[in-house]
Amino acid sequence: MTKITPRPPKGFRDFLPADMLKRDYVFSIITDTFHRFGFEPLQTPVVELSETLYGKYGEEAENLIYNVRHGRSEKDELSLRYDLTVPLARVVAQYENELTFPFKRYQIAPVFRGERPQKGRYREFYQCDADIVGVANRSADAELVALKVMALKRLRFPQFSVKINHRQLLTAIGEYSGVPQDKLADLYRSVDKFDKIGASGVEKELVERGIQADVVKRMMSLITNQQVGVNNLDYLDETLGHVPQAQASIAELREMAGYLDVMGVATDHYAFDLTMVRGLGYYTGPIFETVITEPNLGSISGGGRYDDLIGIFRKDSLPTTGTSFGLERILVLMDELNLYPAHIGGTVVDILVTVMDDSLRMESTRLAGELREAGINTELVMDDKKLGKQIAHANKKGIPFVAILGDDEVKSGVVKVKKLATGDELTLARAEFVEQIQAILNG
Amino acid sequence: MTKITPRPPKGFRDFLPADMLKRDYVFSIITDTFHRFGFEPLQTPVVELSETLYGKYGEEAENLIYNVRHGRSEKDELSLRYDLTVPLARVVAQYENELTFPFKRYQIAPVFRGERPQKGRYREFYQCDADIVGVANRSADAELVALKVMALKRLRFPQFSVKINHRQLLTAIGEYSGVPQDKLADLYRSVDKFDKIGASGVEKELVERGIQADVVKRMMSLITNQQVGVNNLDYLDETLGHVPQAQASIAELREMAGYLDVMGVATDHYAFDLTMVRGLGYYTGPIFETVITEPNLGSISGGGRYDDLIGIFRKDSLPTTGTSFGLERILVLMDELNLYPAHIGGTVVDILVTVMDDSLRMESTRLAGELREAGINTELVMDDKKLGKQIAHANKKGIPFVAILGDDEVKSGVVKVKKLATGDELTLARAEFVEQIQAILNG
Repeated sequence: MTKITPRPPKGFRDFLPADMLKRDYVFSIITDTFHRFGFEPLQTPVVELSETLYGKYGEEAENLIYNVRHGRSEKDELSLRYDLTVPLARVVAQYENELTFPFKRYQIAPVFRGERPQKGRYREFYQCDADIVGVANRSADAELVALKVMALKRLRFPQFSVKINHRQLLTAIGEYSGVPQDKLADLYRSVDKFDKIGASGVEKELVERGIQADVVKRMMSLITNQQVGVNNLDYLDETLGHVPQAQASIAELREMAGYLDVMGVATDHYAFDLTMVRGLGYYTGPIFETVITEPNLGSISGGGRYDDLIGIFRKDSLPTTGTSFGLERILVLMDELNLYPAHIGGTVVDILVTVMDDSLRMESTRLAGELREAGINTELVMDDKKLGKQIAHANKKGIPFVAILGDDEVKSGVVKVKKLATGDELTLARAEFVEQIQAILNG
Repeated sequence: MTKITPRPPKGFRDFLPADMLKRDYVFSIITDTFHRFGFEPLQTPVVELSETLYGKYGEEAENLIYNVRHGRSEKDELSLRYDLTVPLARVVAQYENELTFPFKRYQIAPVFRGERPQKGRYREFYQCDADIVGVANRSADAELVALKVMALKRLRFPQFSVKINHRQLLTAIGEYSGVPQDKLADLYRSVDKFDKIGASGVEKELVERGIQADVVKRMMSLITNQQVGVNNLDYLDETLGHVPQAQASIAELREMAGYLDVMGVATDHYAFDLTMVRGLGYYTGPIFETVITEPNLGSISGGGRYDDLIGIFRKDSLPTTGTSFGLERILVLMDELNLYPAHIGGTVVDILVTVMDDSLRMESTRLAGELREAGINTELVMDDKKLGKQIAHANKKGIPFVAILGDDEVKSGVVKVKKLATGDELTLARAEFVEQIQAILNG
């Protein structure tokens, strides 16, 4: 029989235990923060009806959707989900009589896109979304910003900022500076590159695209003004306040700033920033994007208000605002910035109970049973390795303690315990061993 | 624009928050128990190469495998995973130099089968597997039984038993009782129905299948003898001990019983039971199946030793034993038997901070921010509902407390808190509110 070469498909990944423990740590902190804000879990299937997905993302994206089919005949056409937002819209429309509004849900789950695999881009990757359905008030948008800030603080990111902008403010800027209607898309496309190519790059590009130099200058002076917190809104009010669309959206952002302030969100964790443009066309109000500022590592979370999406599946739409954590990117940066606590990522095992030889296997097994019953994560040696190799196994896995139970120990009613990091050995009475190990592990 | 009818594909499910919280509760207890025994998480992609999956499950199953393809051209043929065992075998072969053996991994993840949807059977369902790769010793098999018992006890299942049998013992029974070689498959198929059709049903079926009545009688008297724990092994030794295959397998089960005993597993939680036959052909040693005995609700977990599987991807195979929790079945039974703690399944929210009117929104928002900062799961009212409707929202979701902060309260520097279950109201000083709520929530 020919052996099959063991490999996952291109663009798909396996996560071995040390990596999974890190992922689970990040997931658990974010999940716990979602709960703090009253968001609750939703789960939708990996597979959706094709008609639920097609037509929502644009033609190019449709090429990337994976279609699914099994050997038997089947009427429905099926696809793998492309994001978590369209499934949310479907669920809200489908179960609206069962759900309690405002509906605040989170979902952390893999999505699938047949993109060309490249560094940092995968065909299966996790999205992590929190959305609030049914609140038109800016209180909801502010809550999402506070949520992001708390999650990132709890993950111990030292320097980050949630950039906040507003869809209507972007339109107003065009109007104010005199960018012609048919050049607005070009305008946003160039401004979106601000982080990468800088002010001079944006300026150059806009001129090349045929926008008059004085118009570009006027626009640039507006968006490059980046004062702290509401000060930037004051500045915008002075310059743009006479444009009606600007007036309303500045007022909305000012309302958000008020909520952020009373929620204790520090002004170094958010900024009203007109250079931040989100690509997706469906946003209708405030938009946000979180960047790691020091070092400058780019975006790790986006979001904004999209009041029209649910209308695809429902007679009337519902006001909705949401945020998406760039989980895969966050996981990479957690490593780069060394943000994991020391005990995360090696092993879950607290203690390895060794087996001196076959005649003592029962004694070691009994000890392991007691440790587990007491809530201590315990690995018991089950094969016939020599003691030295058993300890090498603990070292390789990063297990902090090993228990040794040889003939002498059994006769004297004791157990030896070794702390591998220091080599320190203790001899503890067998009868008190579990309790003492518990005390050592607790601190 | 025509609206799309919102629905998931046939055989696929959505889980709304109340259900998800129950699922997450069960997952977390099982995961924590895996950690107690030193099992660590592995994650493999939802999508595997078709060649990794095909040829492993038999022709009928191949019809049920979902194949996957996106719009662009692609060399590899892809499929959705059908179980978690074949991906484990692939991973072990692929990463053997990175893994530490024995490799004890768990995986809780959805698998996909295009079966005809029917009550309790879905096309996407979760599997929950724990396997030990690299230990030939029966210590590993015993550990899996102890693991199941601890997990089910922690989930508060009142009456259950892990039935243990042995592949070779089944062969020996046929030999002992004189069932012809070509009737062995019939024998197992009928015995497998013991739970459903009883001893007389099995007997009748075997005679109908052309096995001599005296042979059937001899076999039945053997398998219906169900004494407690090792007593049943003593009985088998007396009757079957002269058959070499039986001798070796009885000795193995006796070894397992010894380990179970020292690990403190009570004899009412396991039984050596010859009527338990696992369908799959790949088991090579001890096999197990856990049943809820009181009320008689059938199987909720299976498993056994399968030493040959990893050899599909690797020059030499590795001794492997594993268990699979029937998670979807467990979730149904948790509901039927009412095993969820009172606080699981309604909401994660501890307290709803109400908003009396728009002028007081800031004060309420400030309070919500403080509660969240202190680790209390807090929902803040964000829309414009009247107070009565806000409290109705809390009642509908099952939120235990609501905080009320009207003009009078703000002026007097207090907050009112209402316990919805009893209607009790307390007026607490604003300055000590967070601390006091924390004390109330902690018991």
